[in-house]
Amino acid sequence: MSSPWDKRPPRPRAPGHAPSSRPPRAPRPPADADEPRAPAGARDELRLYGINAVRAVFERRPEAIRKIYLTEARIPAFKPLLAWCVKQRVGYRVVAEEDLDRLAASQHHEGIVADVRKAEPQSPGDWLRTVPAGPASAIWLDGVGNPHNFGAILRSAAHFGVSAILLPPQGGLALSGAAARVAEGGAERVPLVRLGNTANAIAQLRDAGFSLAATVVRGGDDLFAARLPERLIYVMGAEGEGMDAQLAAACDARLSIPGTGAVESLNVASATAVFLAQWRQRHVKG
Amino acid sequence: MSSPWDKRPPRPRAPGHAPSSRPPRAPRPPADADEPRAPAGARDELRLYGINAVRAVFERRPEAIRKIYLTEARIPAFKPLLAWCVKQRVGYRVVAEEDLDRLAASQHHEGIVADVRKAEPQSPGDWLRTVPAGPASAIWLDGVGNPHNFGAILRSAAHFGVSAILLPPQGGLALSGAAARVAEGGAERVPLVRLGNTANAIAQLRDAGFSLAATVVRGGDDLFAARLPERLIYVMGAEGEGMDAQLAAACDARLSIPGTGAVESLNVASATAVFLAQWRQRHVKG
Repeated sequence: MSSPWDKRPPRPRAPGHAPSSRPPRAPRPPADADEPRAPAGARDELRLYGINAVRAVFERRPEAIRKIYLTEARIPAFKPLLAWCVKQRVGYRVVAEEDLDRLAASQHHEGIVADVRKAEPQSPGDWLRTVPAGPASAIWLDGVGNPHNFGAILRSAAHFGVSAILLPPQGGLALSGAAARVAEGGAERVPLVRLGNTANAIAQLRDAGFSLAATVVRGGDDLFAARLPERLIYVMGAEGEGMDAQLAAACDARLSIPGTGAVESLNVASATAVFLAQWRQRHVKG
Repeated sequence: MSSPWDKRPPRPRAPGHAPSSRPPRAPRPPADADEPRAPAGARDELRLYGINAVRAVFERRPEAIRKIYLTEARIPAFKPLLAWCVKQRVGYRVVAEEDLDRLAASQHHEGIVADVRKAEPQSPGDWLRTVPAGPASAIWLDGVGNPHNFGAILRSAAHFGVSAILLPPQGGLALSGAAARVAEGGAERVPLVRLGNTANAIAQLRDAGFSLAATVVRGGDDLFAARLPERLIYVMGAEGEGMDAQLAAACDARLSIPGTGAVESLNVASATAVFLAQWRQRHVKG
């Protein structure tokens, strides 16, 4: 097998949880056309949609809600939210399905749309101060770009009790309405942390007792047999391209999910669920 | 907690790997607008797209290929396929990206579209005759409807070496171009089996030494602690609604993936990956 490190100079990447054999193609519209346009003049806002995404914001940080749009049919399910809106003088409007299609720029709104203040990602230092001693897991997303994968990862992270999702320095991934909808409320349950300089971040995480595991499609240690430290950060690479080779080399271990080889890899969100389940199985009771 | 069995008379369902709290809504276009229209007059054909989906058909059953459309940029990657087309007098056309968008009714075609003869699902009897003695796993999809979830499940099933995917009687799920694209070649690696009468199917599977495990969002035995038979069929319920209660009751076990409860459930494709990984970890070496 050729080295996974020498694929794409000058920024070679280890194979990711998606086919790595695709030649580059001409720029196209983003794979997910569901992304809402940001409301004019509100850069600190996010347009959310979907029942569980809106419910989760209402439960966790209701003060972030600025405006609600919903269908008449959805009123009974959201009575507490609407009562809160009246009390706090937050506007809500009952609109037609078609209006929501347009507002969300998606048909997956499930009858409700909310404009909310964005929750800014934390700094690594602020986050680490909140992590108690003992078992803790986190995910470092090194380039995952598809909002559906990001949303599914957030949902699994919430299910398995991950301490945080670490995001590359600015310019990279940010939470979108589509990702929050797919996360089904998970986006409000898992802290997002924005990393700065990679070397500094790794040093900070190690100081806090974390080990880093690079997840690679093949050639890593067998996940099922490997030792998994009780404080562990899984580094997940980009779909198709895998993770940055320098970052992979800086990790303490390289892990792969054993399989038949009949497909090149698992989907990155499915792989993340398997990695998280394995850590939880070893370190969390019940 | 209320019984998961009394949710939706007259066909109550156990909660599935997706939110179960949504009120019914008016009929809408399918969630996935990527589905290609079937080519006129070719009911036995399927329009595939995506590099790995087309490659997998060429590797496994090239005689099924009836027509290829691709961009000029994609020619070098598919030289062996095109040479085969010339030799076998199968037509191929070099077209523009926009033509492929229209042919696939999707932008996710990655530069290649193929019309192929459908692989008809096998009967349970035919499939069981091919399953060797010893460890074997399969998935029974009781109502999973989203083609992206179906595709991701096929991909994980191929990775983990599942013996078959069992589909409910006709009228239910069938392979689509979108599912095959998401499966990244997995659709050609895992046999699809079309079940008839449920009671007969269960009896037949038990005769062949299989146990059936109903997968439920909560209230089942802890997957990580439960005994997992070496011949096992995981029954996966529909997104949102879960699995049919009668079917769940007829299973030998009920299994749940332990979690925090912070989200209602995992995505059904992520859950399937976790269930399959756990079986493989116990019963397959390396």
